[in-house]
Amino acid sequence: MNYHLNNLPERAVKPREKGFTMCMDKGLSLREVEDLIETSGEYIDIVKLGWATSFVYPKLEEKLRIYKEAGIPVYFGGTLFEAFVIRNQFDDYRKVLDRFGLEHAEVSDGSIEMNHDVKCEYIAKLSEQVTVLSEVGSKDAEKIIPPYKWIELMRKELDAGAWKVIGEAREGGNVGLFRSSGEVRSGLVEEILTEIPSEKIIWEAPQKAQQVWFIKLIGPNVNLGNIAPNEMIPLETIRLGLRGDTFHHFLNKERESIF
Amino acid sequence: MNYHLNNLPERAVKPREKGFTMCMDKGLSLREVEDLIETSGEYIDIVKLGWATSFVYPKLEEKLRIYKEAGIPVYFGGTLFEAFVIRNQFDDYRKVLDRFGLEHAEVSDGSIEMNHDVKCEYIAKLSEQVTVLSEVGSKDAEKIIPPYKWIELMRKELDAGAWKVIGEAREGGNVGLFRSSGEVRSGLVEEILTEIPSEKIIWEAPQKAQQVWFIKLIGPNVNLGNIAPNEMIPLETIRLGLRGDTFHHFLNKERESIF
Amino acid sequence: MNYHLNNLPERAVKPREKGFTMCMDKGLSLREVEDLIETSGEYIDIVKLGWATSFVYPKLEEKLRIYKEAGIPVYFGGTLFEAFVIRNQFDDYRKVLDRFGLEHAEVSDGSIEMNHDVKCEYIAKLSEQVTVLSEVGSKDAEKIIPPYKWIELMRKELDAGAWKVIGEAREGGNVGLFRSSGEVRSGLVEEILTEIPSEKIIWEAPQKAQQVWFIKLIGPNVNLGNIAPNEMIPLETIRLGLRGDTFHHFLNKERESIF
Repeated sequence: MNYHLNNLPERAVKPREKGFTMCMDKGLSLREVEDLIETSGEYIDIVKLGWATSFVYPKLEEKLRIYKEAGIPVYFGGTLFEAFVIRNQFDDYRKVLDRFGLEHAEVSDGSIEMNHDVKCEYIAKLSEQVTVLSEVGSKDAEKIIPPYKWIELMRKELDAGAWKVIGEAREGGNVGLFRSSGEVRSGLVEEILTEIPSEKIIWEAPQKAQQVWFIKLIGPNVNLGNIAPNEMIPLETIRLGLRGDTFHHFLNKERESIF
Repeated sequence: MNYHLNNLPERAVKPREKGFTMCMDKGLSLREVEDLIETSGEYIDIVKLGWATSFVYPKLEEKLRIYKEAGIPVYFGGTLFEAFVIRNQFDDYRKVLDRFGLEHAEVSDGSIEMNHDVKCEYIAKLSEQVTVLSEVGSKDAEKIIPPYKWIELMRKELDAGAWKVIGEAREGGNVGLFRSSGEVRSGLVEEILTEIPSEKIIWEAPQKAQQVWFIKLIGPNVNLGNIAPNEMIPLETIRLGLRGDTFHHFLNKERESIF
Repeated sequence: MNYHLNNLPERAVKPREKGFTMCMDKGLSLREVEDLIETSGEYIDIVKLGWATSFVYPKLEEKLRIYKEAGIPVYFGGTLFEAFVIRNQFDDYRKVLDRFGLEHAEVSDGSIEMNHDVKCEYIAKLSEQVTVLSEVGSKDAEKIIPPYKWIELMRKELDAGAWKVIGEAREGGNVGLFRSSGEVRSGLVEEILTEIPSEKIIWEAPQKAQQVWFIKLIGPNVNLGNIAPNEMIPLETIRLGLRGDTFHHFLNKERESIF
């Protein structure tokens, strides 16, 4: 850090299992990737190339190489997995992962109806090849999954071989974990945490108010995902209690008595 | 494309009259223009330098040269045309277009009151010099134009020499074609399409929900405008049914029976 | 400017006391800073490194050098001052300012409770070392300060040595001067202006509608702050009456009779 401040919360450093941040790249140019690494490389644990943007992005191999040289793993969004599966091209998907040298993949069912045992089989199969992140929650705002069901789904997917499970929010932060207004379904999150270890979950939290909510509930080292590239530096200050929103949250209360 | 997916909708390629995308540059740096061309050059058919940003932008000639070398035509936003006209400087405007070597221009009346015959005369006059895009719809949220009137205005402007007509939405997507909430005035759009060929219209649709709506109604090769530079890659995935929003829209229904 | 338009409002040029724009950098890369200077250097009077982003930003000295070479002063957001003060590290803060060669600093109490005499002492002390901007208004949406109190606070802070006072709005534009909806508290602003000279105030106005409101009320040369980098070019057109929102505002009414 550039100067010293006392009384900051302890922040995990890379490589870390907790305090993990997944950054969403939905079409950055190669120079923008270089810039992202320059400004936020220390704070990014993994990058998702959002949904199927990797299909239309023209310099995919160069982009993957830049991230690789920076030691930042990359994976393709779960919607791409679903796009292959619904076309009965799962084997092609496995070859694509190999061809591009990917070491992580996401299994999700946000846009398709899939029997949960089938989903777990995909997780098991893919985890022989790569590290699997699996996503729970629908992209459909109408589908409300009750808390006990979220817990059951997460547990089975971890048992099937998922490294971490992701709580769905989309890029907009308005489905799954969130109400259509963007507000967190807080009872849902608290109930999940009674049963699933926090470090096994990545919470998609694209909006600042959502990031603040998770950091206040779980602490500076909560795992967060779907963070926009230009919100990486701001997020790091929120984790450290150095933005208005969490300013008082990590302070020793006695310190505040000086005024 | 970077890998093969079956059962995708057919997507027009450049040069194209349908499936046309107009990207809005409201002050990109020269490097950002280079980056935009690198990531999205194949998907951009024309660039608008938003409203009068070309007046204050410091490296205009360099910017125009970069777009030109990439084969992407550029035009100045209609508000600039109006700013010249309201000052009685239309001849100056024609000279400006020549001085900067522009081959397209927009004629609009979004911010001024103009007799429609006068507008059509401007279209006719300018179309001797450049390819004209004309815009229908007011930037004033209070002015509701009924559907039959939109159709009449569009038809007359095409007859006067406009290459394509643009349905107004502003950068924010909250006027003209849209309600102040951003919601599409769908009856209006459907009625227009009964009379004016879809390929003659560019629908301004800066917000994702609006893009999705038009793509579902008209198909992957609808003409869309006012797309932000960093939404070009996402838009391309929406056109192809490779983002959650249009995921099922172009799929053969039989394919989905596999689960 | 790139061409000539008659009948534009007079716009102050650098160095200027009025028509001053403070741009908010919340983590731009070095190249993005260079690009910002290229496109908007003439329009930026000062840059704020938002809140405590300077703490976590990895190339702070290089960034400060680039701004310095462009003749653009930089200061650290007021939340950083508060973070040092609440930790009883005010002397460390003064050393940090010296170590990085800063010539401006912000004194604020948006996140902490501070006796106003104490705040004025900080202003007085810091103004021996640097040029001080002081900020009035809370980041807490619940704290409504009545107009007479805003005036009293501003006057005392200017008397204590502040160069200019800043009206608080946050990055989001939803507290202080604004209602939670982002709407301007217009009676408040008008009352302040009866007592405090407009050129001594920087109004934080991150949203376009807010910028438009201030420009219509105070004119093209109002001082505005918390402007996002990619809104600098758009803002300049709004100041000049060259965007729809202020298109008619600075026009000689007689000119408009031509249609």
